[in-house]
Amino acid sequence: MGEETTAEASLPDKHKDFSEWYSQILQRANLVDVRYGLKGFIVYRPNIMYVIKRIYETYEAELEATRHKPVLFPVVIPYTAFKKEADHIKGFQDEVFWVSKAGGHELEEPGILRPTSETAMYPIYALWVRSYKDLPLKVYQSCAVYRYETKATKPLIRGREFLWIEAHTLHRDEKGAMGQVMEDIEIAKKVLYEYLGLPFILVQREDFDKFYGAVSSYAFDVLLPDLRVLQVATTHYLGTKFSVPFEVRYLDEDGQSKYPYTTCYGPGISRIAAATIAVHGDGFGAVLPFDGAPVQIVIVPIPKEGLNDKIFKKCGDLERLFRERGVRARFDDSDARPGEKFYQWELLGTPVRIEVGPRDIEEQVVTVFRRDTRTRAIVRESELADYVQGLRRDILSNLKKKSEAFLKENMHVAMTKEELMKIAKKGGIAKIRFCGRKECAEEMKAETEGFEVRGMDMESRERAEGPCTWCGFPAAHVAFAARAY
Amino acid sequence: MGEETTAEASLPDKHKDFSEWYSQILQRANLVDVRYGLKGFIVYRPNIMYVIKRIYETYEAELEATRHKPVLFPVVIPYTAFKKEADHIKGFQDEVFWVSKAGGHELEEPGILRPTSETAMYPIYALWVRSYKDLPLKVYQSCAVYRYETKATKPLIRGREFLWIEAHTLHRDEKGAMGQVMEDIEIAKKVLYEYLGLPFILVQREDFDKFYGAVSSYAFDVLLPDLRVLQVATTHYLGTKFSVPFEVRYLDEDGQSKYPYTTCYGPGISRIAAATIAVHGDGFGAVLPFDGAPVQIVIVPIPKEGLNDKIFKKCGDLERLFRERGVRARFDDSDARPGEKFYQWELLGTPVRIEVGPRDIEEQVVTVFRRDTRTRAIVRESELADYVQGLRRDILSNLKKKSEAFLKENMHVAMTKEELMKIAKKGGIAKIRFCGRKECAEEMKAETEGFEVRGMDMESRERAEGPCTWCGFPAAHVAFAARAY
Repeated sequence: MGEETTAEASLPDKHKDFSEWYSQILQRANLVDVRYGLKGFIVYRPNIMYVIKRIYETYEAELEATRHKPVLFPVVIPYTAFKKEADHIKGFQDEVFWVSKAGGHELEEPGILRPTSETAMYPIYALWVRSYKDLPLKVYQSCAVYRYETKATKPLIRGREFLWIEAHTLHRDEKGAMGQVMEDIEIAKKVLYEYLGLPFILVQREDFDKFYGAVSSYAFDVLLPDLRVLQVATTHYLGTKFSVPFEVRYLDEDGQSKYPYTTCYGPGISRIAAATIAVHGDGFGAVLPFDGAPVQIVIVPIPKEGLNDKIFKKCGDLERLFRERGVRARFDDSDARPGEKFYQWELLGTPVRIEVGPRDIEEQVVTVFRRDTRTRAIVRESELADYVQGLRRDILSNLKKKSEAFLKENMHVAMTKEELMKIAKKGGIAKIRFCGRKECAEEMKAETEGFEVRGMDMESRERAEGPCTWCGFPAAHVAFAARAY
Repeated sequence: MGEETTAEASLPDKHKDFSEWYSQILQRANLVDVRYGLKGFIVYRPNIMYVIKRIYETYEAELEATRHKPVLFPVVIPYTAFKKEADHIKGFQDEVFWVSKAGGHELEEPGILRPTSETAMYPIYALWVRSYKDLPLKVYQSCAVYRYETKATKPLIRGREFLWIEAHTLHRDEKGAMGQVMEDIEIAKKVLYEYLGLPFILVQREDFDKFYGAVSSYAFDVLLPDLRVLQVATTHYLGTKFSVPFEVRYLDEDGQSKYPYTTCYGPGISRIAAATIAVHGDGFGAVLPFDGAPVQIVIVPIPKEGLNDKIFKKCGDLERLFRERGVRARFDDSDARPGEKFYQWELLGTPVRIEVGPRDIEEQVVTVFRRDTRTRAIVRESELADYVQGLRRDILSNLKKKSEAFLKENMHVAMTKEELMKIAKKGGIAKIRFCGRKECAEEMKAETEGFEVRGMDMESRERAEGPCTWCGFPAAHVAFAARAY
């Protein structure tokens, strides 16, 4: 069922030259503007803002459903607070933007633009938390953060200003905090995989590669078409590493004053948008899952003199009908030719297009085009609503299937250094036995042109038997290695 | 109908000591935390974030409905761009936070934190706008802005970081741009008055009191309980004052290269939240209109041994029923006593409370409390949905009526200096004849302890006859004067 359309792809093959494909789609679909003139800062244009807003809404809804509450802390963090946790400042101090002057004066106290908000928040938690009844405390904020990246920047993927959510939680004990980490993982699965169709590898970062100040860090890496992985979200177990220096304490039921165990969680919203476009996109542009699309159905009239009143009326009726059902439908009544409209809406990834032409009017059918497979079908008007419901599921499951197949295809087991070298040459993800040593990881990265240990495979937590794939020392665990953004 | 409840107000009288009332409600309803330790920066807590998110949603929906599109420009504006429009930089340069260092280095080019985004945006408009077909260009962004205020700060009312929306538009000609200003005014009426029940005075700011860089400025001032006015939104006609220095040009239909006429619009979301709380609130806390409330109906069980299963089940059923109808209902099943729950939800301004007690179960009724009048009524379950729909309208119209009456009561005509002095002593708004001279306005302000000209009354644009109320020079127009935040 469904006839394939025959137009020619207008973008390069993303698997052959991802970098070119990505920069072309950003520009031609008017997603971002990179000409702002300040390194690492970009302009988010409407077409990407619509996608980003949908991701924010979805993530926020999941956080609210798990009893996180919205807050907003200042963008400027006083330096005295910022420097309180030793590992945190050590890690971040070369990456922060300073705010030390205002108007004509030096500020009483210099501040930094938040690179993450722990040090803004913990002094206030010390005021909010008194008793075990105040715990768990679960908050989140949707905001931009600032890091003075010295690596090469790439729009939406690595910038000096990026959009994220940061959720922060405080618990009575380690068990509560680790339970939160598990909840964060479930939420990421829902949003990334169930909603956006993005599969990922879930790793526990190696000890030498943790978030500055964390006890343990867990990360979600998505494989991009150029066979490099992109970390799109992380969650961190902080133990009492922040509650102690910031003197956050609570009076427990047993009358003892204790330090809460805490976590933080950072889904990168601009990165998730980038991954969605990169993973599902093709030579015709972006391909969005139905639920994640700003416009879910575009309705395009195929004009025919003498019948245009009827054709346009039908398009308007369909738009209204779908909207009443809560579907984000858009009747494109602009002056452009149908072919131009097809091209533009395909570029943006709109999952379903309904074409209404003269024959459709006569026969009470419409032509339905689905973006993911680029196939057309003739559908009776009376069956249209059910048909679109079916497409909604089919598109998501097709995107999942394709992206999972891609991940699986490019996931290899490397038992020896030689095998790893081969995989590193080809690209993709290597499942290895790893000793856990920083020196080993550094040597591997240097000798493989950037193939790096991403962390312990969370799905197989048992101890790896035998020697480290790279150095031959006894292995500590199964890990993933890949080139990364 | 409806019996008044008799609890005692827990907050001071807002008309007698607004400052104390306001600071108590901010603290006791957990709206903001002022203990962040950086002057002019506050922490937005969940209870205010819920209100703020509703206002953002509503304003954004109105902007989208009038074809504005979302964008996001960087928070850092390069100084070279910032200084391009002469009046703009003259006005803002003492108010900006500087970002001139990152990591250990001085930045290649110093930047400022956006106090408003014209100078971030116009260099990019110069790239986006080519032809008359690109116009009108209408965008908005929801963000925080930064101004180094030297005046006394007040949470949500005047801070160094505040939340707003800024909408920016470019048009082919003056008529298009002025039409946009009118559209901005209509949107403000909808959101402020029709949605939140906040009446305001609409003024055209005097020439000496315009937005830095504007041709003309229009402002919405809300009268607060202490009889001072708060500017909650402004819209500005910029003519070609920004398009010229930034070299934004378009090729018109006639083949000529022209400068677009532009506008900007800034509803202050934190201020609108503050005004909503201040104008409608009473001795028991905030009073929110139904549509603007994060929780619209709270359902409180009145426990009775032996009947609690039934009572709790009924509460849960009601919550589900209302939610299915799209009402934000919340069953408060916490351990607190009913009286404590009443107190807390009234403090937050929740418009409707449903109480379910043992007698209600027997008689298939519920007790409905409305927050604005603080009255209770017994309502049959079968009539509850309609009753709540009625309340939704009644609450809004009651809030409007009260707030309009308050505005009217405190609006006086001053034909002479003596009359103005009397009004200035009492507080409120004076409608005056004004000469339009800065010196006159300055003298008035100095001699009246802060009573200042707010601008020309937009509802009566005819030329005022006779002498200026203050100085006796010939009047140029009818204006409002008041003490202002």
